[in-house]
Amino acid sequence: MKSFASDNYAGVLPEVMQALSDANIEHAGSYGNDVITLRVITSFKEVFSAEVDVFFVFNGTGANVLSISAATQSFNAILCADVSHIYNDESSAPETFTGCRFFPLATNEQGKLDITTVEQRIIRKGDLHFPQISALSLTQSTEYGTVYTAAELKAFSELCQRHNLYFHIDGSRFFNATASLDSSLSAMTTDIGLDILSLGGTKIGMMHGEAVVVFNKKLAAQIKYKHKQVMQLASKTRFIAAQFEALLKNELWRKAALHANRMAQKLAVALQQFTKINITKPVQANVVFAIIPKHWNEPLMAVFPFYVWREDLNEVRLMCAWDTEESEIDAFVALIKTLL
Amino acid sequence: MKSFASDNYAGVLPEVMQALSDANIEHAGSYGNDVITLRVITSFKEVFSAEVDVFFVFNGTGANVLSISAATQSFNAILCADVSHIYNDESSAPETFTGCRFFPLATNEQGKLDITTVEQRIIRKGDLHFPQISALSLTQSTEYGTVYTAAELKAFSELCQRHNLYFHIDGSRFFNATASLDSSLSAMTTDIGLDILSLGGTKIGMMHGEAVVVFNKKLAAQIKYKHKQVMQLASKTRFIAAQFEALLKNELWRKAALHANRMAQKLAVALQQFTKINITKPVQANVVFAIIPKHWNEPLMAVFPFYVWREDLNEVRLMCAWDTEESEIDAFVALIKTLL
Amino acid sequence: MKSFASDNYAGVLPEVMQALSDANIEHAGSYGNDVITLRVITSFKEVFSAEVDVFFVFNGTGANVLSISAATQSFNAILCADVSHIYNDESSAPETFTGCRFFPLATNEQGKLDITTVEQRIIRKGDLHFPQISALSLTQSTEYGTVYTAAELKAFSELCQRHNLYFHIDGSRFFNATASLDSSLSAMTTDIGLDILSLGGTKIGMMHGEAVVVFNKKLAAQIKYKHKQVMQLASKTRFIAAQFEALLKNELWRKAALHANRMAQKLAVALQQFTKINITKPVQANVVFAIIPKHWNEPLMAVFPFYVWREDLNEVRLMCAWDTEESEIDAFVALIKTLL
Amino acid sequence: MKSFASDNYAGVLPEVMQALSDANIEHAGSYGNDVITLRVITSFKEVFSAEVDVFFVFNGTGANVLSISAATQSFNAILCADVSHIYNDESSAPETFTGCRFFPLATNEQGKLDITTVEQRIIRKGDLHFPQISALSLTQSTEYGTVYTAAELKAFSELCQRHNLYFHIDGSRFFNATASLDSSLSAMTTDIGLDILSLGGTKIGMMHGEAVVVFNKKLAAQIKYKHKQVMQLASKTRFIAAQFEALLKNELWRKAALHANRMAQKLAVALQQFTKINITKPVQANVVFAIIPKHWNEPLMAVFPFYVWREDLNEVRLMCAWDTEESEIDAFVALIKTLL
Repeated sequence: MKSFASDNYAGVLPEVMQALSDANIEHAGSYGNDVITLRVITSFKEVFSAEVDVFFVFNGTGANVLSISAATQSFNAILCADVSHIYNDESSAPETFTGCRFFPLATNEQGKLDITTVEQRIIRKGDLHFPQISALSLTQSTEYGTVYTAAELKAFSELCQRHNLYFHIDGSRFFNATASLDSSLSAMTTDIGLDILSLGGTKIGMMHGEAVVVFNKKLAAQIKYKHKQVMQLASKTRFIAAQFEALLKNELWRKAALHANRMAQKLAVALQQFTKINITKPVQANVVFAIIPKHWNEPLMAVFPFYVWREDLNEVRLMCAWDTEESEIDAFVALIKTLL
Repeated sequence: MKSFASDNYAGVLPEVMQALSDANIEHAGSYGNDVITLRVITSFKEVFSAEVDVFFVFNGTGANVLSISAATQSFNAILCADVSHIYNDESSAPETFTGCRFFPLATNEQGKLDITTVEQRIIRKGDLHFPQISALSLTQSTEYGTVYTAAELKAFSELCQRHNLYFHIDGSRFFNATASLDSSLSAMTTDIGLDILSLGGTKIGMMHGEAVVVFNKKLAAQIKYKHKQVMQLASKTRFIAAQFEALLKNELWRKAALHANRMAQKLAVALQQFTKINITKPVQANVVFAIIPKHWNEPLMAVFPFYVWREDLNEVRLMCAWDTEESEIDAFVALIKTLL
Repeated sequence: MKSFASDNYAGVLPEVMQALSDANIEHAGSYGNDVITLRVITSFKEVFSAEVDVFFVFNGTGANVLSISAATQSFNAILCADVSHIYNDESSAPETFTGCRFFPLATNEQGKLDITTVEQRIIRKGDLHFPQISALSLTQSTEYGTVYTAAELKAFSELCQRHNLYFHIDGSRFFNATASLDSSLSAMTTDIGLDILSLGGTKIGMMHGEAVVVFNKKLAAQIKYKHKQVMQLASKTRFIAAQFEALLKNELWRKAALHANRMAQKLAVALQQFTKINITKPVQANVVFAIIPKHWNEPLMAVFPFYVWREDLNEVRLMCAWDTEESEIDAFVALIKTLL
Repeated sequence: MKSFASDNYAGVLPEVMQALSDANIEHAGSYGNDVITLRVITSFKEVFSAEVDVFFVFNGTGANVLSISAATQSFNAILCADVSHIYNDESSAPETFTGCRFFPLATNEQGKLDITTVEQRIIRKGDLHFPQISALSLTQSTEYGTVYTAAELKAFSELCQRHNLYFHIDGSRFFNATASLDSSLSAMTTDIGLDILSLGGTKIGMMHGEAVVVFNKKLAAQIKYKHKQVMQLASKTRFIAAQFEALLKNELWRKAALHANRMAQKLAVALQQFTKINITKPVQANVVFAIIPKHWNEPLMAVFPFYVWREDLNEVRLMCAWDTEESEIDAFVALIKTLL
């Protein structure tokens, strides 16, 4: 079965699987004290052009919670998009572990925040009755598959500096966004003044694992203790590190991301030919949002599962992954034609 | 490099690696909604001879915290051994996530708790000034490589029932213990009246992953929400489930556990010949504790890394794993002879 | 100094002060085990016409957090008004102690929620990725001094029952609201099907102390342990209970509330004569919201302190208390006339 | 009724009650922004001979939790006595709010910790698997009514500095201890290098209220936000401050403490005459511990309630308060004589 349900449905990139196999020799130090992990951290410093600290974690919620916990005390608050994953799809893990308030901010129709909306919410500084806002968390690419440009991120970064906030990016699809912008990892992070990044590995084609990349040394002092405490420290860390090593080698991440993005483009172009389909969001990463006739859901999903995003409009989400094939898109389009 | 440092240093069983490769085909539902996960849960019900609920998690701390959180409110307390992993090696994750007190209880020289010690600590029931004791957490096999017999566990289970406590086992090496007793998974759990089990996969030869196995249906109502909240729900769950499937197939777990246990026995027998070495704990699972001359540490560790457990006595921990080879033990013993 | 800043600025009702003095004889059991506390709890059962459980606490945040903690697990969420005290003025105490998400809902211009807005947010039931909504928290009277009628509360209660939510009222000014409606404590709680109430004592004229009143027996099982755990159990509880006894005696609460409400009415009527003043909210309890010329703030506040609620409009909040005197309102109005 | 049950059973000192009445005039700023609170904080700086920060709270658990939360991150641990109030009588509030581990240390037969015991537990610094020890919490006077001398406290303070721990004293009966040593508040805190103090007001004769006194400026940065968050900020703070003002005036605290201590001495001397009674602890503050015949409990408690501390020995706790009268001790002794 293939699907347009989620890039989480996809399996593991062959190069990543090979790396796992290659890493499976003899004994290695546990909890990150192994040569592969150390080697990959060095590679991270190179690709981010910065003396980053790197913490490998299991999943995206773990990455986000670890990142936020490093930037907060329990009386703090975090600003995030009302449509963000951290506000909608991570249960109450963010609150339970950090103790903080998460303030949802309205996004535009592309799922992006703007400077004014964020700045207007930075209120009551020093007022002990109000949770003190200490961080901004953005998603790149957004839940709607749109991307912030480097200039836009830079503006948010400067806003954060003006107001003494930490700047976090939830980058579960950061590779897709960076490839979409034809940019580099360092240009989208170090150069814009980011403090901390949740860098997604699973959706781009790893078996499991994400990385928390810390650019701001003030955050680095205590995060290693939080890493363990938040239950995200793997005993056999080498098997996460090795997967990232495969992704970084010859920019495999870019190849996988560009492919997924290109498949989304192809799908969008193909769907635009149908007057009964209305593509609702700019297609900038690896997903297409479209309003389709509701009675199409069942016959289409029977072959290619996907999610209905907004039930009232029958807006559906069609996600492409590293392993989406052109023939599958052709087959999907052919299936649509039978429904016209 | 091989070592006696930890079964966490070992890699992945070939059968498990093959299962990972086999699971890497096409798309699968995420977050446990896939055919492999469903199939493996059915297998769990068979091997435990009970309608268990199963939650696959990433690591041992996650398994323990999820288990305890299912059995507690934040005003509760848990009884555990003072030498236990949950009290010594999981940071303050247990308290931070559950809000509970963990009361350490003195163990005997084998690292085991006895009924009297536990019962004497079950105090102040209904006294709102005191954290209300709601669970007992035991480790099987213990941190010292000793094992509780089924009869001993049954006695603890009855104690828990008398006092209305939940009974949890931290089984990061549960397979080693069960193999050591020549028993079955159901005999050591369902039959003794266990409520909830952290079943370790990583140390026996998985790449990553443990399972929380819930026997008591009262605990099952809300644990699925906690599973996500505690950041232990994998998007690509199939890759944990597939590893457990390999372990269960033809009782691979028993083969791996018996091998590791046998290597520990062989090592113990070999070390007993040296008058300068004093084996300090019964060797019942896959580890040998021994007091050795302190000046041996450096030359031995240079070839075969291991941990010093008690610095004052120079008591060292020598852990065997699924991949420990007889020739390595021979080489270790030969190296000792050069130090005499 | 007198002020229109807050009913928290007012002192203690003479009858309450006398009750404190009267309670100060000999020894009494601590932590609520005293005759006064038991007597007052009996009185609560009478005035609420229900077998309520009562927990005396120190302050409003404590009352709200205790109430919500009784109605939630850490993976739950609570619906509340975006202008509510629990969302704006209690730091992150609600999240830190309960672990839950608090979802802010838009209110109308009177600061009230409506059924549709609440019902639309009751989403994703059973979806473990989303914090499970378990309670609705309303404020009576609202932050804008408006009140929900019994019929309106009844409709919310039925909504909660339909969706299996607990219904909580933050009643820091519940006495003012009940007096405003010329209703009774039981009619506004027991009769509308409320589950749990934070009943304010401090703002109506106590020195310190609020009461959590539990109508739903399902919530009562564990709340006594939470009461201690949330640091809200007073050793000398009799001195909170005695104050509530004074409030209940001959309905002193109604007399105090009606006075404060009447002063707000008098103030509103007096202000309406000025064309430069725009009263912005219906005056239903003990507060007047009005837009006044900004340059009046300083000379007015110099004599009668008050708070600017919205800086952009120069909307000010003028709060009356049990001790506000007619002559003070006259003096305030006279002062305004000097500014025309 | 009078009792030897607890100094929490006693009422309010007449001077304190008068101060409450005197403070009840007109309006005052809320949440500590009032002239009385500011005045009393100045007095605290004088009596402690230091630029302390002062936070008035409601009760002892609140004071301890606020203090510890100022000195910790959630991955930290605190060392405390196994018999301490914070470990035995505050539910799991310390863990729930701070997220930390509390390690209980064995005390001597007087309920006091010694340097060696504490130092031996300061282990695994920098080991992220172990909760990082960041504070020592001592009780003065101890749960057994014994007191640490200034020299003893100084030694603990130096130990804390050597190991980079914060030094906290739970001083719910700090006034009794200081009076017992014929010392001053500054000599027992500032001079010994204390970081933070929970200063008890309730047991010495206040209606409610304690103070967290912060000597270490590093702790002061964020504690004001925690003060609110931990639900311990009173809206009418002046009524706690005024009580402390009465205590400080002419050292009323010393007069009240010396009286209670003297009553304990008188009681101890009187009990020593009975061969059937065995006084078990040095009587240094306001409590006597004694083993008495078990069948005396009922007839004695019928007139003078008290608590049995250790059931196995029938060791009872006889607490004196500011209002214990000589005639009551005489009556108690006379009652004992009827039982011989």
